[in-house]
Parts: sequence; structure tokens; C-alpha cells
Amino acid sequence: MKQSQLFTKTRKEAPKDEVSRNAELLIRAGYVHKEMAGVYSYLPLGLRVLNKIENIIREEMDAIGGQEVSMTALQDRMLWEKTDRWDDAKVDNWFKTKLKNGNEVGLGFTHEEAITNIMTNHISSYKDLPIYAYQIQTKFRNETRAKSGIMRGREFSMKDLYSFSATQEDLDAFYELAKQAYKNIFERAGIGEITFVTFASGGVFSKYSHEFQTLSDAGEDTIYLSRGKGIAVNKEVLNDEVLNDLGLTRDELEEVHSIETGNIFKLGTRFSAPIGLNYKDENGEQKPVIMGSYGIGPGRLMGTIVESFADDKGIVWPESVAPFKVHLIDLREKEASDALYEKLTDAGIEVLYDDRDQSAGEKFGGSDLLGMPYRVVVSGKTLASGKFEVKVRKTGEVLMLDENELLAYLKR
Amino acid sequence: MKQSQLFTKTRKEAPKDEVSRNAELLIRAGYVHKEMAGVYSYLPLGLRVLNKIENIIREEMDAIGGQEVSMTALQDRMLWEKTDRWDDAKVDNWFKTKLKNGNEVGLGFTHEEAITNIMTNHISSYKDLPIYAYQIQTKFRNETRAKSGIMRGREFSMKDLYSFSATQEDLDAFYELAKQAYKNIFERAGIGEITFVTFASGGVFSKYSHEFQTLSDAGEDTIYLSRGKGIAVNKEVLNDEVLNDLGLTRDELEEVHSIETGNIFKLGTRFSAPIGLNYKDENGEQKPVIMGSYGIGPGRLMGTIVESFADDKGIVWPESVAPFKVHLIDLREKEASDALYEKLTDAGIEVLYDDRDQSAGEKFGGSDLLGMPYRVVVSGKTLASGKFEVKVRKTGEVLMLDENELLAYLKR
Repeated sequence: MKQSQLFTKTRKEAPKDEVSRNAELLIRAGYVHKEMAGVYSYLPLGLRVLNKIENIIREEMDAIGGQEVSMTALQDRMLWEKTDRWDDAKVDNWFKTKLKNGNEVGLGFTHEEAITNIMTNHISSYKDLPIYAYQIQTKFRNETRAKSGIMRGREFSMKDLYSFSATQEDLDAFYELAKQAYKNIFERAGIGEITFVTFASGGVFSKYSHEFQTLSDAGEDTIYLSRGKGIAVNKEVLNDEVLNDLGLTRDELEEVHSIETGNIFKLGTRFSAPIGLNYKDENGEQKPVIMGSYGIGPGRLMGTIVESFADDKGIVWPESVAPFKVHLIDLREKEASDALYEKLTDAGIEVLYDDRDQSAGEKFGGSDLLGMPYRVVVSGKTLASGKFEVKVRKTGEVLMLDENELLAYLKR
Repeated sequence: MKQSQLFTKTRKEAPKDEVSRNAELLIRAGYVHKEMAGVYSYLPLGLRVLNKIENIIREEMDAIGGQEVSMTALQDRMLWEKTDRWDDAKVDNWFKTKLKNGNEVGLGFTHEEAITNIMTNHISSYKDLPIYAYQIQTKFRNETRAKSGIMRGREFSMKDLYSFSATQEDLDAFYELAKQAYKNIFERAGIGEITFVTFASGGVFSKYSHEFQTLSDAGEDTIYLSRGKGIAVNKEVLNDEVLNDLGLTRDELEEVHSIETGNIFKLGTRFSAPIGLNYKDENGEQKPVIMGSYGIGPGRLMGTIVESFADDKGIVWPESVAPFKVHLIDLREKEASDALYEKLTDAGIEVLYDDRDQSAGEKFGGSDLLGMPYRVVVSGKTLASGKFEVKVRKTGEVLMLDENELLAYLKR
């Protein structure tokens, strides 16, 4: 894409009330716009990143048999009363509103109730199971504090998958599959090495749930990490029994801040029983369906990536989620730059082409802020040498490559 | 996709309170789930249709220079007070809710205010113009009546594009481009022949706006149509002056019911002036940006397609938006059916494969209800003849084709 066509502009300052580093950088770079605390619109480059993250998640959910749906924000009070989650005394972050007839409705902060109710129309026999359904959809949570930028929004994109199984064994087996799919997602999104499976509270139906915690000083969570064993325990559940269960000692644990980037949870019959989602087993007996839920926030993941890799010059995107792989900078050599832009895009490489009439300093500063993985410069100097200058955003490494070498390098 | 893996089931009856034909069929076929009046979740097959419609729209918006964004549902009261559209006495279909601090916020029923405000950060000079930004995003409208299924929802997907121009001439030129893009969308979605550009009220800044009205007995609108000239006039604006403007006589007009499937509107400075979206022209003079808005509802389009083509057996999808092109029915010839499924999918043809253990009658009934363009049957009888039976859902035409003929026919 030609940058002269892109409507967003970079800016020197974020809004004064913005306190999070991820939102500050994303606003300055023109990726998002702050509507109010915890409420951010996505502008073209930001939406490209979000879509890439969502597509990685979608592919991993499809790979374990997920079927995509899209549920609604507006939620029926009667359904949530069945599970005792309607009352504000029970759930403290509802947004509620009213229909014209005066009936109160909620804005979904999660969708266990909705999907369980939908499944009552589609599950009747053990032959219908298992089912895995997921959506990537907007959640609303009336947070008292919303100071973590796009990492904790009042309105945000969420992938939530729900599993429906006949037996505990089937749930357990799928749960392990989902755990691996989550590991794949973090690996592909570039934060695999700093993201750890973390034991957390399991609720009524299992001893533990699992969180995926990504190390970050900006994180709101505290976990105890065994780097050696690659697992962690949430501070909330750490005690001797847990240590014993996991074969850990306090000595090997390090207290670190982290961001909860995903969680998986065995629900058992917590929702199927009150909503009446039953199936007939092989002996004709009615039984409640055994459920699990598996959540990950694409926007939170995006914010976490910014927090994890940004340096003092700006954002640093991993290739897999960068809006464009290459930022091509023309320094008043339009003809050669146009030709290279065409060659690179013809080769299937995603290029943001800074074809604007700005100084080299402005272009370089903007490019560092935007954070594409590779910056390629076309200038009188590089052309005289018969080469192009490539700078790797993450490492600062500079290479001088001729056109064939450049194409081969970028197509790896 | 194998139908044995699809979690949705067809059903004989829609919910008793469902009064619209489109929702009744879509619910029975398992495409959508009714959460409450005017609020529908999309299940796997329904989401596939919606995505295909959205992608057609996206391609046409990209082709005229649209840049995709995604704005938020939650809307800031102060912004809407600037344009005098906050008060419930001025806008009667707001959903409103409250933040924890007591501040009232709205759920966006449209996004002129939000996008205009965003653009104040990105537009300063005539050199920044024109800009065309669009989103495909959820709108909330607190309708008193919601009896038209997915054609008029309280929560629904909407594509809204906003244009930002320096001059009226630039707006006028883009408006014609957008009109053509809309015609392309309806053509590609299969309802081009029954959709007419319709003159409607223009508001303060232009004499007319244009609606795209699709003929349907289920429509809530009444228009006067000149089939000969291929244009129509909304009943709300029909008078002698309008007839004169358009060179029409009452005699050539036919009163028909229709569904408003799109609208395009010149906004002028209605929003840019109160919100302060200005640009500096070539003489250094500050001027308000000239805007237009262009709306189309993917869900409404989907409902309109159902209403337009369904017959007494069920839904009839045009190829371009069908969840799958082919419904392959195995009548107890699993081996041959599996082989054909593999051949068709390898050839890049989208196939829903009914591999379930049901009677021929049940499978045929379900297939007619689901409405894929082509039904292909594999049975002992067809195999004995060395052919497969193809039935065209729309016309009922039946062909007997051998494997090569079948592949050639379906790959057209």
C-alpha cells in the first residue's frame, strides 16, 4: 500500500489521559483511536494486525474441530437468571440497557449461557457429541479501572470456544488438544518463548484451570515461574498442596509480573445442568452435557505484543502479525522506488510504501514508530552502489543487498 | 464439509413467536438462532453466508478506495451532544447504558459522529483529501417493532462508508462511484434485477438521497417504480416536482412493496461543522470537510435474498452467497460418495457432504430446506447407470452426468 493513500498520520503525542504504553504507541502510530478509557477503535493498520492475529487463532481453532459461529451482544435476562449470573451482586461488570418495552437486557461479557441455550436445539443424543463451537466477537465488561490500553477494554474482541462432551474423559482429552492449540497460537504470534502455562483456580468442577501468562512488567497479574520446568503458578492459588501436586519447591520459583493472554477452563455441568442441556446416552439415560471453555483476546494479544517488544523508538512487530512485512522508504528516487515496490508486491510480499514528500529524518522516525519487520531504503547513495539498504527493525542489523538478493532475503 | 460433523440440525418448526418468513426458514435450516425479537446469532452455515456477503461488499468498497476500520459500539455522550443527536427526543432508537462512574454512554446506531471525530486527528490540509473509510461492524437500534427477522434487527451487521472531500464536486463524483459500487454489490449478490435506485429525501444538503430498494412483498417500504426506466421514487417524497425533476409521469409508475437494502446520502457539513473537522485549502483558508455516507446491511441483504428466492420447499441461495455450492447426498453408497467428495473438493468446489445415516426422503427434504445451488445424488441406481444425478435447486432441472461431465459442469 502507498502511504500517501493511507489516511492515518503518525503523531508526536498521545492523548494526555492515556497511561498505558501499548495504547500510547498504538495511538501515536495511528493504529487505534481512543474513544474513551478502555474503548478503542481500530484504524486501517491496527485492523490489519488484529485480523492477522484473529486468523492465526481461527486456523488453530479450525484445526481442532472448532465450528465458527457469531453470537449477539444483547443477552436475555431470563437465560442468565437460570445460572444465577444476572444479579449485579453476583456479576459486577455487566453493562445493562433496556428495550422499548422496559425489559432489561445485558451486553454479553461472556457467552456460556447463550451457547448452552443454542445447543439445546442441536444436541439430543450421545451421537451428536462432541461439539466444539467458537466465535470471535465483541465482549462488553464494565471495568471500574481501564488503564491498560487495549489489554483490558470495556469493549473488546474475544475468541471464545466452548466444548460439549459426553464424558469427563472426552473433555479431558479435548482440553489437552486445546492447550496445545493455545501454545501454537502464542508461538505463531511471536510470544511463545515468554508465555507460560500457569496453574490457576479450577472452581467446582476441576482442581485447576490453566492460564497462559505472558511475562511483562506491564502485567496486572503476579505469577510464580519455574523457568527450568517451563510452568508457573498463579499467586492466587500458590500453597504447599499445589507445590506438592506439581512437584515444585518454593526455591525454584521466581515472582514475576505477567499478562493473562489466555485461559482454558473445565466447566463440567455448571451451565448445562441449570439450562437443561442434556443428551441421551447409549442406554437411553438423560445426562447433562460436560462442557469446557477456552478464551483468548485478540486485542489483548496485540497489546501484549506491543508491550513485549517495543523499544524507545516505537513498536516492533513479529512478522506473523505485522500489518506489512516491509516498509519501503523512497528518498527522492521515485522511479527506482516505484519499480521496486512493484517487484516486491508482484513477488507476493506485503509492502507499505512511503512515497510521501517528507524528509529522510521524518520518514525514518515514522518507520521506527510503525514497526514493520524490515525497512528498505531507496536513495541516490544506495542506487549508486547498485544495492538497497535493508534494516531489521528488531535487531537493528543493516544489510546492503542487490535486487535479486533482496527478493530472496524477503521471500524466505 | 461433512454434514455428520456440522453441529446444527434442521427442524420442522421455528419458534412460535417468529413471524417473518426469512427468520422462520433460517432458523428451521439451522442458519441462525433467535435470541430475542430482532436479535439473532449466526450459526456455522449462516455465518458462511454472512461472510460471503460481507466479502463481496468489502471488495467493492476496496475497489473505490475505501480503507477499512472498526469503530466501537460504546459512544461518548459529549460527542453526540455536539451534533444534537444525543437526546432521546431527537433520536428515538438509542440503547443507552452506564459506566461504573455513572456516566451515560450510548450504543452506536450509526457512526457519523465517531468517524468525523477520528478524522480531526488525520485531516488538516486539502492534501489529505479525499478519504474514504468504511467498517463492517455491529449496530444497535432500539426498534419498537422487530418483526422482519434478520431484515430489521435490534443488533445487526452494517457496512457504513464515509467520504471526506474538499469540494462539493469531489463529493458528487465519488457519490456516483459509490452508486455504481452498490449496483455491483446487488448484482453480485444475485438481486441486481429486482433492486432499483430509488429517489428519497435528501435532507438539508442535497435535494435527493438514493436508496436501493429490492422488490419484495415482505418489504416495509412502498415505492413507485418505472420498470421501463429502471428507477423508482420513495412514496415519502413523491410529488409533482419530483416527477418533473426525473422526467416521469404518474401513469408509468407502479406501486410496489420493497426492502431498503442500501442507501447513499450527501451529508455536506452536517457533521464536520459542529465537530470541527476542517481542512486548510490551497489559499490557507480553513473550511469544513464535505462528507457523504453510504450504508448497506449484510444481514438485511441475506434476509432479502431468502425472502426473494425461497419457495415452498425452503431456501434458494444464489451461487455467490451460498454456504456451499454443492450438496452431495450419499444414499448408502459410502465408498463412491467419499470418492466423489474428495474429487470435488480437490477441484476447489465447496461441498456440503451429507454422509449421515438418514432416509432418502429426510435427506432430500433437508437439502431443499438448506438451499445449496446444486444437489448431487450418489445412489445404487445412479452408479448402475455410470452417472450422477444433479438437480438445480432454483429451477428443479435434473441432469444425469458422468464424473468428467459433472466436474466440468460444476467448475463453470
